[in-house]
Amino acid sequence: MRGAERGLFVTLEGIDGTGKSTQSMALARALREMGREVLLTREPGGSTGAEEIRRLLLEGPPDRWSAETEILLFTAARRDHMEKTIQPALEAGRIVVCDRFADSTRVYQGITRGDLRGKVDALHDLMIGRDPDLTFVLDMPPDKGLARARARNNGEERFEDFGLGMQERMRTGFLELAQTLPHRCRVIDANRAPDIIAADIFRLVRRALP
Amino acid sequence: MRGAERGLFVTLEGIDGTGKSTQSMALARALREMGREVLLTREPGGSTGAEEIRRLLLEGPPDRWSAETEILLFTAARRDHMEKTIQPALEAGRIVVCDRFADSTRVYQGITRGDLRGKVDALHDLMIGRDPDLTFVLDMPPDKGLARARARNNGEERFEDFGLGMQERMRTGFLELAQTLPHRCRVIDANRAPDIIAADIFRLVRRALP
Repeated sequence: MRGAERGLFVTLEGIDGTGKSTQSMALARALREMGREVLLTREPGGSTGAEEIRRLLLEGPPDRWSAETEILLFTAARRDHMEKTIQPALEAGRIVVCDRFADSTRVYQGITRGDLRGKVDALHDLMIGRDPDLTFVLDMPPDKGLARARARNNGEERFEDFGLGMQERMRTGFLELAQTLPHRCRVIDANRAPDIIAADIFRLVRRALP
Repeated sequence: MRGAERGLFVTLEGIDGTGKSTQSMALARALREMGREVLLTREPGGSTGAEEIRRLLLEGPPDRWSAETEILLFTAARRDHMEKTIQPALEAGRIVVCDRFADSTRVYQGITRGDLRGKVDALHDLMIGRDPDLTFVLDMPPDKGLARARARNNGEERFEDFGLGMQERMRTGFLELAQTLPHRCRVIDANRAPDIIAADIFRLVRRALP
């Protein structure tokens, strides 16, 4: 499928409260202002079926699913999202801006919930087989991020409930992931004013445009 | 985990309307009458989480999910079912009687919905890794089975909606699968009186008891 793509696939990653949603929206707006067609989406979710799986994943107590069941559900939602939303947009030449993608599963489930990174990667290779062209890892001290995430209080706190110690391990996980994938990952200091961060990200995306 | 098991894992497979549920119940009853502890369960479903995934799989139009997303959802439900229901019962020495299991996914999704058998097997090896000790493939002409399945009219008709041609391909799929796995699969002629079929199945299970 990838041969027919003319778009660009951009993802934003990082722990909770680092401003991924805000920056995704700012990037979409800036690209549209320069005349580009943009699809703004997010995970888990992003398609009708994936949103239904999202509800299973984000509601309920933290131990509702084992880590293994969880990575299967994330991969099912991602497959639906890729087929129904992302791939058609890329083939139509759009820029896809996605708030979280497979790197979140690699870090959250692969590193912090048992040593499942090998299974996460095997599932991704078997059932998804497509990585973003460009990934921004928004980095910030976890205590700041967690305070912002908790202030949202939107009922989807299953993962945020894991607490500060887990957020610290996840921050390290994202930074290590970015180091191993330098061809597509850029670490962004998210502990700055939102418009400064947005300008950084926009500059890097412009350089990568087809 | 398997080293600690003292139970027996029995599954019933076959196309719709062949009497799997009736025979599962009859087998559980007969085993209990001889003093054995039995766990009677079914797929998709069989645990709290898996039942929720079951609803996503069985309701809605036939093209709601792609075959790839479907096998991921079936595998997620199966993993939850194994962890929460089947494995604990086997470790406690119970006989587990399960109405449908991984062979249904191998045949329905692996054979009849695109050539996905390789992906189905890879997912099973990666995330489930446990086959039944004994599998009964209930066999019957598809027109008879389909008429019985439609008479139930229970709102879970997404797969039955595929029609007679698909049921015929699935029957062939089950028979071919049984041929390739003779160490655990027994084909049962389901076009006979239910008590005759039940007696056949009970006799074969007794022989396999630990």
